[in-house]
Amino acid sequence: MKTPERITGVLSPVVTPFGKDLAPDAQRFVRHCKWLLANGCSGLAVFGTNSEANSMSVAEKLQLLDALVAGGVPAAALMPGTGHCALSDSVTMTRRAVEIGCGGVLMLPPFYYKGVSDEGLFRNFAEVIERVGDPRMRLYLYHIPPVSQVPITLALIERLLKKYPGVVAGVKDSSGDWSNTKAMLDAFAKSGFDVFAGSEVFLLDTMRHGGKGCITATGNVNPGPIDQVYRKWQSVDADRLQAGITATRKIVQKVPMIPALKAIIAHFGNDPAWRTVRPPLTELERNQEEGLIAELRSSGFRMPGLAA
Amino acid sequence: MKTPERITGVLSPVVTPFGKDLAPDAQRFVRHCKWLLANGCSGLAVFGTNSEANSMSVAEKLQLLDALVAGGVPAAALMPGTGHCALSDSVTMTRRAVEIGCGGVLMLPPFYYKGVSDEGLFRNFAEVIERVGDPRMRLYLYHIPPVSQVPITLALIERLLKKYPGVVAGVKDSSGDWSNTKAMLDAFAKSGFDVFAGSEVFLLDTMRHGGKGCITATGNVNPGPIDQVYRKWQSVDADRLQAGITATRKIVQKVPMIPALKAIIAHFGNDPAWRTVRPPLTELERNQEEGLIAELRSSGFRMPGLAA
Repeated sequence: MKTPERITGVLSPVVTPFGKDLAPDAQRFVRHCKWLLANGCSGLAVFGTNSEANSMSVAEKLQLLDALVAGGVPAAALMPGTGHCALSDSVTMTRRAVEIGCGGVLMLPPFYYKGVSDEGLFRNFAEVIERVGDPRMRLYLYHIPPVSQVPITLALIERLLKKYPGVVAGVKDSSGDWSNTKAMLDAFAKSGFDVFAGSEVFLLDTMRHGGKGCITATGNVNPGPIDQVYRKWQSVDADRLQAGITATRKIVQKVPMIPALKAIIAHFGNDPAWRTVRPPLTELERNQEEGLIAELRSSGFRMPGLAA
Repeated sequence: MKTPERITGVLSPVVTPFGKDLAPDAQRFVRHCKWLLANGCSGLAVFGTNSEANSMSVAEKLQLLDALVAGGVPAAALMPGTGHCALSDSVTMTRRAVEIGCGGVLMLPPFYYKGVSDEGLFRNFAEVIERVGDPRMRLYLYHIPPVSQVPITLALIERLLKKYPGVVAGVKDSSGDWSNTKAMLDAFAKSGFDVFAGSEVFLLDTMRHGGKGCITATGNVNPGPIDQVYRKWQSVDADRLQAGITATRKIVQKVPMIPALKAIIAHFGNDPAWRTVRPPLTELERNQEEGLIAELRSSGFRMPGLAA
C-alpha cells in the first residue's frame, strides 16, 4: 500500500455517538463522518479530545475504526488519535491505523504523570515509532496543555524531527495561544512539518504564516464555512469569512464544548440520541441548550443535509 | 466466595518491574509482593500511581493480577487500582478484581477531562458499581489531585456513600494536605468509611483521628518501620517512631519518587534490572542515585532479606 497524500485543510475531531447503554454507535458515527467529508472536512481526526476518545477502550476504538473503513470512509482521510497513557496501547492503535492506510495519526503524549521530562516524552514517541516500524506512518503531535497538562515543547519537536524526518509530519496546536502556534510555524513549517491550528479562530493567521489548516471541535457542526476560509485565505474576502466562523465559534463555546456539539447535531439533525455523553461528561442543561440553539438560529447557522 | 475482612494497616502501591523490552516482569513482581507482605505490608495496592499502572494496558495488568494469584499471593490482601479514563476499562478491571476475591479496588476518577462536575464523576463511579453488580465489591476512592488533577470532593463521597453503603468502603487521600484528610476523617470515619493517608508522613495523625492506615509509595522499601507506627500508634513510642519514618521519606522524596524506589530495590536487592521504568518516566541520573543510596545508608536504612 503506498503512502497517501498528506491531509491538509479542515479536519474535525469527530464526536462519538453513544447508545443509551453508553456503547459506541458505529452506524451514527459512520453517517456523521460521511456528512463531514461531504460538507467541508478534508480529513477526520477521529478519537480526539472532542470524540471522548479517552473515555473509550482501545477495543471500542478499533471497532469504530473498522466500521468506518467497512462503511466506505477512505482511510487516507483519517487521522485517528492513537496516543494513550500506556505505551502498549499507543503502539496497538498506531499500528492498526498505519496498517489500514490512515493518512496520519494524531498522538497525545502520555498524560497521567505531570512534569515529565522532554527526554521521557521523546522516548515515548520514539518507542511507538520504532515498534510500529512502518515508513508509511505519519505522526502528528497533539499539543493540548489545557487538558493533557503535558506540553509538546519546541525542543521536543526539533529532536523528533531530526531523528524521524518524514515520519514526524506535523502538530495540532490546541494551546489556545497564538504566539505558540506562530513559534511552531516559524521554527518548522519550512521543514515539511505541517502545523494545524487547534481552533478555527486561528485559521487565517495560521494559513498566512505557512500552516496547513485546522483541526477544530466546531468542524463537527460548521465545516463548510470553515473550509471556505481555508480555500479562500488569499482572497479579499478572507477577513470577512474568518470573522463569520469566529462568531459562530464564540456562540458555541459559551457552554461546555462536547455536549454542545452533540446537542447541535441532535437538534439540527433531528436525532435526540446524539445528546448522550459518557461519564465523566454530562449533557447540557436544558436552558443551556435552548440558549445555544436560539443564538445559533438567529445567527443564520445551518447544517445542510444533516437531518435524515 | 465470601467477602474478605477489610484491609487495614500499611499498603504499598507496588512498583512494577519491566524487562529490557519494557514488558512487565511477572516473576520479579510476584517476588517483590511476597517480600512486602512478609515485611510489614498488610495489603498491596498494586496498579497505583507508583506502579506506573497507567503506563500499562488493561491486558498487561490482568496478566500481572493472574500471576500474583497463581504465585500464591492472597487475593484478599490485594487492592488493585482499577480506575481508568475509559469507563469500559474501569469495568473490565474492577469486575476481574472482584471475581478473584480482591480485598478491594482503589479507583482513580477518569482523569483526562479537567474541571468535570461531581455529577459526572458520580455517574462514572455509579456506572462501574452497577455494571460490576457484585455486593462483594469494596470501592476505595483515590484522591490524588496533584497528579490526576481531578479531585474527589467531600460532597461526592457523601453522595456515593449514601447510594452505595457497604460498597463504597474508603479513600486514599494523596492530596498531601492534612486538613483535607482530617476533613474526610471527621466527616466519614464513623460511618464505616476507611480513610488511608496517602503518605506515611501523616500516618500517626491519621490513626489518632480514626483512620485505618496508609497506602504509601515508600511502603515499597520501608514497610517494616511504617508498620511499627501503625501497630504502636497508641504507645508512648509513637511520636519517635513516626519521626523515624518521616525522616526516611524525606530522604527518598528529594529525587523523583518512582525511579527512586526502583533504584533502592535494585541496589539493596542487588538486582539492577529493577531500575527500568517505562516512558514517559526516566531512571534517576547516576549522581541522584548515588546521593540517595549514600544518604539512606548513613541513616541506617535496611531492606532485610531482599537480596536473593
